[in-house]
Amino acid sequence: MKLFGFFRSSAAFRVRIALNLKGLAYEDAFIHLRRGDQRGGDYLAVNPQGLVPALEIDGKTLTQSMAIVEYLDETHPHPPFLPPAPADRAHVRALAAIVACDIHPINNLRVLRYLSRPLGHDQAAIENWYNHWIAAGFEAFERLVAADRSTSEFCAGDRPGLADIALVPQVVNSERYRLDLSPYPTLARIHANCMKLDAFAAAHPNNQPDRDD
Amino acid sequence: MKLFGFFRSSAAFRVRIALNLKGLAYEDAFIHLRRGDQRGGDYLAVNPQGLVPALEIDGKTLTQSMAIVEYLDETHPHPPFLPPAPADRAHVRALAAIVACDIHPINNLRVLRYLSRPLGHDQAAIENWYNHWIAAGFEAFERLVAADRSTSEFCAGDRPGLADIALVPQVVNSERYRLDLSPYPTLARIHANCMKLDAFAAAHPNNQPDRDD
Repeated sequence: MKLFGFFRSSAAFRVRIALNLKGLAYEDAFIHLRRGDQRGGDYLAVNPQGLVPALEIDGKTLTQSMAIVEYLDETHPHPPFLPPAPADRAHVRALAAIVACDIHPINNLRVLRYLSRPLGHDQAAIENWYNHWIAAGFEAFERLVAADRSTSEFCAGDRPGLADIALVPQVVNSERYRLDLSPYPTLARIHANCMKLDAFAAAHPNNQPDRDD
Repeated sequence: MKLFGFFRSSAAFRVRIALNLKGLAYEDAFIHLRRGDQRGGDYLAVNPQGLVPALEIDGKTLTQSMAIVEYLDETHPHPPFLPPAPADRAHVRALAAIVACDIHPINNLRVLRYLSRPLGHDQAAIENWYNHWIAAGFEAFERLVAADRSTSEFCAGDRPGLADIALVPQVVNSERYRLDLSPYPTLARIHANCMKLDAFAAAHPNNQPDRDD
C-alpha cells in the first residue's frame, strides 16, 4: 500500500490518521505541493485531479481523502469510524463534511494561490480569508458537538472516528495562523484528546519525513 | 419529512434528486438564500451552520447534503446509490467529492459574496473564478469517468447513483454561466441521460415552487 501525500496537506493527514487507527502499514510517496510535483505528468497519471492524497491499494488507486477513509472503514471494520445507527452516522458524516467540504477546500493551497494571483491579494487579506472560513465552520461544528448527546471524549463517543479524523488536521492548520480556539471549547477539548493518541501524533505534519519547514 | 431548501441551491437539488429516486414524498420549507433567511434565528435553530439543505426526518434534523444522501441510501436501500464492492464505492464517492468538496463550496453564494465584499471584485472577476473551479473539477471528473470501465449510461453502471446526484446540479449551475461543456463529452452525455429521468427533471431549480428568477 502506497500513500501519495505531502506533510502539510491536511487531506493527506486525514488518511495518515485513518491508516494508523486501523493499524495498517504503508509506504510513502512524497508529492511536494509547493514545488508543483502534483502538476507533473507522473503524478497526474496517478491522480488526474492533481491533488493529494492518493492511495495505491490492492491494485487500485483511490483518490479523495474522505472516500479513502470510508473505503478503509469498509474493508477494515475494526475499530469502526462510524456508529451503527444511520442517524448517528449522518451526524458524524455531517460534522466531517463541515471541515471536508465547507472549510478545507476554500482554504486549499490552490485557492490561496488564486487569491494571490490573478486576484492580487496580499498576505494579510489571505490570512483574513483563511481564518474567516475556519471560524465559520468551527462555530457550527462547536454548536453541533456541544448540543449532541453522543459527544464525549471524541466527536461521537469514546473512540475517535470519521469526524475526529477530519477535525484534527483542520485544527492543526488553524494553529499555524494563530486562530483563537477559545470560542470552541468542545472542539478544542476533543482535539487535545485526539493528539494524546499515537495514531494522531504520528500522523502530524511535524512528524513526517518530508517536512521541510 | 420536511426538506429545508432553496430552488437555486445545488446542495438542496442533490437531496431533491435523492428523495425522488427513492420514491420518498416530502414537504418543502423554503429558505430564501438571497434574502438571508438562512441567517435568521428560526433557521439557525434548525441548522446552526446556516446552510441549506436540512432534512427533518424521524424526529431528527440532518444537515450536509452528502451525509443526507448517504443516510437515505442506508435507510432506503433500493435503488442503491452505491455499487457493492468497496473499491467501486470509493470510486463513486471520489467522483461525488470532486463536485461536493472541490467545486461547489468554492463557488457557493457566501464565497462569491466575500469576493464581492470585502474583497471588492466585480462580476467579471467573479465569473472567471466560478468557471475556473468548475473547469478544474470537470476536467478531472471527465478523465476519471472516461477511463473507468464502470462508466455506462450513468457514472457507474446503468442506473444513477451518488456521483450522478452530485454531478447534475453542478452541470445545471455551469449552464447558467454558459460554461462550454464540449471538453467534457462523457460528463455531458451522463448529464443528458440523467435529465431524461423524472427524478432529476422534477428536482431541477426551474421546477421548484419557490423559483423567483
